[in-house]
Amino acid sequence: MTDLRARQSELQDLFDTYVDAGLRLDLTRGKPAAEQLDLSNDLDGILEGFYLLQGGTDVRNYGGILGIPEARQLGAEFIGATSEQVMVGGNSSLNLMYQYVEHMMPHWRGEPVKFLCPVPGYDRHFTICEHFDIEMITVPLNDDGPDMQQVKELVSQDAAIKGIWCVPKYSNPTGNTYSKEIVEQFAEIPKVAGDNFRVFWDNAYAVHDLVEQGDELPSLMTAAGKAGTTDSVVMLGSTSKVTFAGAGISFLATSTSQLAAFEKFLSNQMIGFDKVNQLRHVRFLKDSDGIKAHMAKHRDIIKPKFELVLNMLEKHLAGKNMASWNSPRGGYFISLDTRPGLATTIISMAADAGVKLTPAGATFPYGKDPENKNIRLAPTFPELAELESAMDVFVPCVELASLNAELD
Amino acid sequence: MTDLRARQSELQDLFDTYVDAGLRLDLTRGKPAAEQLDLSNDLDGILEGFYLLQGGTDVRNYGGILGIPEARQLGAEFIGATSEQVMVGGNSSLNLMYQYVEHMMPHWRGEPVKFLCPVPGYDRHFTICEHFDIEMITVPLNDDGPDMQQVKELVSQDAAIKGIWCVPKYSNPTGNTYSKEIVEQFAEIPKVAGDNFRVFWDNAYAVHDLVEQGDELPSLMTAAGKAGTTDSVVMLGSTSKVTFAGAGISFLATSTSQLAAFEKFLSNQMIGFDKVNQLRHVRFLKDSDGIKAHMAKHRDIIKPKFELVLNMLEKHLAGKNMASWNSPRGGYFISLDTRPGLATTIISMAADAGVKLTPAGATFPYGKDPENKNIRLAPTFPELAELESAMDVFVPCVELASLNAELD
Repeated sequence: MTDLRARQSELQDLFDTYVDAGLRLDLTRGKPAAEQLDLSNDLDGILEGFYLLQGGTDVRNYGGILGIPEARQLGAEFIGATSEQVMVGGNSSLNLMYQYVEHMMPHWRGEPVKFLCPVPGYDRHFTICEHFDIEMITVPLNDDGPDMQQVKELVSQDAAIKGIWCVPKYSNPTGNTYSKEIVEQFAEIPKVAGDNFRVFWDNAYAVHDLVEQGDELPSLMTAAGKAGTTDSVVMLGSTSKVTFAGAGISFLATSTSQLAAFEKFLSNQMIGFDKVNQLRHVRFLKDSDGIKAHMAKHRDIIKPKFELVLNMLEKHLAGKNMASWNSPRGGYFISLDTRPGLATTIISMAADAGVKLTPAGATFPYGKDPENKNIRLAPTFPELAELESAMDVFVPCVELASLNAELD
Repeated sequence: MTDLRARQSELQDLFDTYVDAGLRLDLTRGKPAAEQLDLSNDLDGILEGFYLLQGGTDVRNYGGILGIPEARQLGAEFIGATSEQVMVGGNSSLNLMYQYVEHMMPHWRGEPVKFLCPVPGYDRHFTICEHFDIEMITVPLNDDGPDMQQVKELVSQDAAIKGIWCVPKYSNPTGNTYSKEIVEQFAEIPKVAGDNFRVFWDNAYAVHDLVEQGDELPSLMTAAGKAGTTDSVVMLGSTSKVTFAGAGISFLATSTSQLAAFEKFLSNQMIGFDKVNQLRHVRFLKDSDGIKAHMAKHRDIIKPKFELVLNMLEKHLAGKNMASWNSPRGGYFISLDTRPGLATTIISMAADAGVKLTPAGATFPYGKDPENKNIRLAPTFPELAELESAMDVFVPCVELASLNAELD
């Protein structure tokens, strides 16, 4: 016990030093670093004055909500669907998700709408639900995907459950990729769910491997094709973390008939998305091989950052029973679980010591982590040296908070 | 009468010739011609690898719903407001209008929502109302703007009227610009209207002069500032017909407090608009002088097209009491009124003879032109020769339909 007290005191001194140092570091959002963005600088200017498509369409002019054929083909390869099932949106797949939910709301009218949310998950999915007053029901996310037994039970018992949010590959924040079996079960789920049930398949990290042989996610659309449930599938993706985070293009795939219905909905509010930028992306990324080669360059930049964070966690926290974390094979986050009840305290301590972390609870609906233990670390944006400084602060915060709780 | 019968027969023969010729011409939508789009080809590549703003913001990365300061300043000059009152959106001001109406809907809840629509007007404004189940009440649009006496009476008698759609400069389709007096009256209207009344000031043709000294539209925001009604002002504009029709940037201006509320609403559905394209536009257009110089080049291209249409109308239809039309000083349309009841017939005849025209009624709410007489001609998109061919068909259709009706 004296040893622990001594360690506590030592950590407290270290913590005070950091507080006095007035650091300003940030591990919050999953943003690409400037060096990653540099990889796509050639996007601007790539058209060299050629704005016409093979079919004669002038991308500079109005029209065409579904996007240019060339970009729909790129999206099809990206997302795992046919080009007829894919539309290409603007710079935000999040916006497409919002619009799709809005599009469905009248079809869901007459009952309280509920969504399933595998947790921990992506806060902006939850925000969309809150905006539309959609009740969120959490289900556990295991290493191979959501607890499908629970998903099946819930949707078959309650027809008011109209959707489920999934990040099926390198999930935000836990980095898990759904297994083949889970994907196949997802294709079957709409059969036991209420009318107009939708699987929101946000494949945000479809091509974002941190290892050379990344995880293989089977195509939900293919599985749904066999199961006859493509109407219930809404797959999403974007180039936000491929090219420019604020100026990429987005993809949405569903059955052709549901795509036509969504197109009609969108026609009330727009004439079309930015086709010039779609063409830029086609010229720049070319096809799935082009994307793969491009993503390898991203990997070279961000892999050392993930390794740094993991090494420091390993070095300072392993075997102490104070935290557990994942070693993601792709995606943008490291998800760390503290001892129950300590996430808020640790995040607040880190803030006092100059390191901003994603708010506690952000990875749960309504911002409420029932065990108050999940912390999402985003290593990509800071430079390596900053990242190391931030982890120098964060790691003792975890230990100190754990000791404080233990010794109090 | 025999003369008229002879003329009718002659026109019928001519018409039949056109039908047999199988032409495929189009005078429907207000799209820029390829030659106009060429004026902005340098947009792509203009950044030359420089993506950082003076303030250090990297436009390639996430964030900033209100847009980059440089583009907000450009928008302020464009739209007649201060940069703090302006946000910069994506490629569609129509989308901003839709989103703003959606944003207001909860504030308008609890009563049937109604909008005033000066007619003839822009069909896509009406589509937004229909989508949100907003009842549309028409008011006459005079040469100097809407009938303000009627507007005032209506809004003061019915608190359910929550908005009015205006295209205050070179209005679509009549080409009228609101007078100083009308603009000042608009600034006062919210004082006699119900709660949360909004003037939707769609300044789509703010800089689109067809004459060297274009119309001057006083700033509604300035007038509203004096009247204390800036919260009720929503001004809109875009570069769709300045740079690329499908890949420009859009502007929305309102009071800073209302802008903050709208920003909060948008934060539920997006992280930000495309800032790279905003920066491209700033570099390309620079400021209001830059815009002016650029628009002069547009004028050189489209003025001859308007002149051609007007000359042909003048030559073939003047003095026959069969049609009246405007000679716009700017904008994208020529609005033609036939004898009452004939618009549908003429448009259908033109279609049979190979010339596509905007559907009858499109310029009125619910697609219903009460007098069935308004036809919107859009001369910008076709080449001069095509335009002439289209008018060669259109003009006899007007005369023939008029004679048919007269002689039946």
